[in-house]
Amino acid sequence: MTDGDRAEQMLAEIAAASTTTEGVTRLPWTDQHRAAVIVMTGWMQDAGLEVQMDAAGTLVGRSPGGRGKPVLLFGSHQDSVRSGGRYDGIMGICLACLAARRFRDRWDALPFAVEVLAFADEEGVRFPTALIGPRALAGTLDPAVFDLPDAEGVTMRAAMAGMGVDADAALGLARDPARILGYVEAHIEQGPVLEDQGLPVGVVTGICGISRYAVEVTGETGHAGTVPMEGRKDALVTASKVIAALPDLAAANPGLRATVGWLDIAPNAVNGIPSRVRMTVETRSVDDAERADFAEEIAALVSDAATATRTDATFARTYDQPAVTCDPRLMALLEQATTQAGCDPLPLPSGATHDASAMADLCGVAMLFVRCRGGVSHRPDEYASAADMGVAVEVMARMIEGLAAEGPAT
Amino acid sequence: MTDGDRAEQMLAEIAAASTTTEGVTRLPWTDQHRAAVIVMTGWMQDAGLEVQMDAAGTLVGRSPGGRGKPVLLFGSHQDSVRSGGRYDGIMGICLACLAARRFRDRWDALPFAVEVLAFADEEGVRFPTALIGPRALAGTLDPAVFDLPDAEGVTMRAAMAGMGVDADAALGLARDPARILGYVEAHIEQGPVLEDQGLPVGVVTGICGISRYAVEVTGETGHAGTVPMEGRKDALVTASKVIAALPDLAAANPGLRATVGWLDIAPNAVNGIPSRVRMTVETRSVDDAERADFAEEIAALVSDAATATRTDATFARTYDQPAVTCDPRLMALLEQATTQAGCDPLPLPSGATHDASAMADLCGVAMLFVRCRGGVSHRPDEYASAADMGVAVEVMARMIEGLAAEGPAT
Repeated sequence: MTDGDRAEQMLAEIAAASTTTEGVTRLPWTDQHRAAVIVMTGWMQDAGLEVQMDAAGTLVGRSPGGRGKPVLLFGSHQDSVRSGGRYDGIMGICLACLAARRFRDRWDALPFAVEVLAFADEEGVRFPTALIGPRALAGTLDPAVFDLPDAEGVTMRAAMAGMGVDADAALGLARDPARILGYVEAHIEQGPVLEDQGLPVGVVTGICGISRYAVEVTGETGHAGTVPMEGRKDALVTASKVIAALPDLAAANPGLRATVGWLDIAPNAVNGIPSRVRMTVETRSVDDAERADFAEEIAALVSDAATATRTDATFARTYDQPAVTCDPRLMALLEQATTQAGCDPLPLPSGATHDASAMADLCGVAMLFVRCRGGVSHRPDEYASAADMGVAVEVMARMIEGLAAEGPAT
Repeated sequence: MTDGDRAEQMLAEIAAASTTTEGVTRLPWTDQHRAAVIVMTGWMQDAGLEVQMDAAGTLVGRSPGGRGKPVLLFGSHQDSVRSGGRYDGIMGICLACLAARRFRDRWDALPFAVEVLAFADEEGVRFPTALIGPRALAGTLDPAVFDLPDAEGVTMRAAMAGMGVDADAALGLARDPARILGYVEAHIEQGPVLEDQGLPVGVVTGICGISRYAVEVTGETGHAGTVPMEGRKDALVTASKVIAALPDLAAANPGLRATVGWLDIAPNAVNGIPSRVRMTVETRSVDDAERADFAEEIAALVSDAATATRTDATFARTYDQPAVTCDPRLMALLEQATTQAGCDPLPLPSGATHDASAMADLCGVAMLFVRCRGGVSHRPDEYASAADMGVAVEVMARMIEGLAAEGPAT
């Protein structure tokens, strides 16, 4: 049996333990999480790793006998969105275990230890926060999040205690950066690029920074029949000029993505001229300066559209998350390993946030994307093929070999 | 006291009898309607008219002694929207009474009878129908509407019975067109044209026909970070191209009005590419052929936008109401009367529907618009000045004189 077939079987098994209604729903600190911990413990033990859960609920599988050696970390998250698929997150843990399994009888030969990390909560579906596990390791955890309640009023601290985890001890989990070689995460792409390029895997260059802006246009309502066209102050026309122009403006900056995903219109009546439109603009780029420059272009676009339609418009930033640049050495090792596995190593940015985003506060990070069908994720029909997962295992194992060949120097 | 001052006082009085919470709320077949009937009966009697309520709930004031003569009809509606103003509808009844009042001692001298009609329900706020009164007179009443319930489940038939009106008898109210000289309605403009032109009144050329269309754009959702700009099928971008282009396209047809007033977007999330947008397009014009031609322009615009964004779009007509052209003879009489009153007679279309729309099935119709502040209507702050209302009374009275001078021939 190939590692690809093995991965498919393992993901089917853990999906079966976590299927509730439609697709996979595996929220943190639930019965599904508990079931997953049992299955994942088996995966890690099968790879010859020693398993324990840390105080942030991260299931940690560590190669034995590596005391005193620096550590190479692999990982991803065990949780899914509601009615999600069987690959997002959990696949990264599975593939890391299968790559580690190739070294199960020769851990002593490596100049570093290997850990596989199964983080509890990356999606942030149950609690209004996420990334507890990596933040605990990076020492960036805000203990206030433990008091946040879920929809039923259960605090995260209480939910964690229900799995025997002492949240307050999570503050003591910060690792010494000097002892960490880096963090590597495999994940489905959640986008169409690898499929379009006909490639099984790709090497991530960085994780996009995110800026969000609120646009509010104020015009004047009026009867759709009685106000002549030339006298109108139609807030929806203003907003539409911005939305219609945005894609071309964004496309002029390769790698930049700009989206108006949310829009609210008032009074929203078939025969009423819209007096107010509120909408969001989200931009993502691995280049923080490019994103900052683009904000000025959007502001000018909004201002010009408002002038042309005699409306008033405001433009304000509501959120900003800086980009993470992947570690050049780890990227080079992944590229080399991909080539060794017989594939072209395509560099591509990650538009979505990952555990690696928070791990970047601790150490250099790298990510390996795996082609997913139709670019679909967070849905029951998300899918990565056994063959592509097999390639990813091959690449990760060869990357461990490559790092070992170079020596453990960070 | 001038007739303008008188009108202001009368409208204040009836507003006081109908004020509920904010502004004026006078729905049909309610205590407010009952109170208004008492006040309006006084107005009609003060004009020397004989008053009775017909089986459609229309309060009819008729000049005495005109048996066998043809009839010139004036009228408007007594009802308001919720939290409306004190002019829309009711002002037309008030001004007609004041114009009639100038003939109270000389009805016999006119070669025709005059009626002032106070229709019960034009706004259609309480029941999902409207224009019962004029439709009864025109013989176009569908008796099925009497079974329609209001929000509390009270049928219109029961509500009418509560005011002593036998709905079924309304089917016998149809007038003989040969005996009617025409129908004249004064109404606030509900738009900004007269204010912009600095004129107290204007002569309506016709009542716009209305077409409504449903546009549905189907694209493909995806993560705002992971789908590159060039691969997107963003339904909101398609819709925005249509909305942004529509005003200029419409403005190329003088008198045409086109509005996207309602829009719905899915999934409507800050980080989700919109996969579906549904929206309405409403067009209004006094020229039915122009409206039909413009539908083809919109269809082409939608189709081009969908092609440019690789989305699918449908465009379908959901409603059509033909235009009403005002009667040339009545218009000429109003224009002449306006000139006699010392004002420039500005011809302008009506973008909104009025009782005159339904009366057009019975006889020639004409409308006199009165300037309203800021073009505002259906709000507590709608306002027409005493001076402007005085001009309107003068014009309506001179129009009666003008028709009398020409003789009653239809």
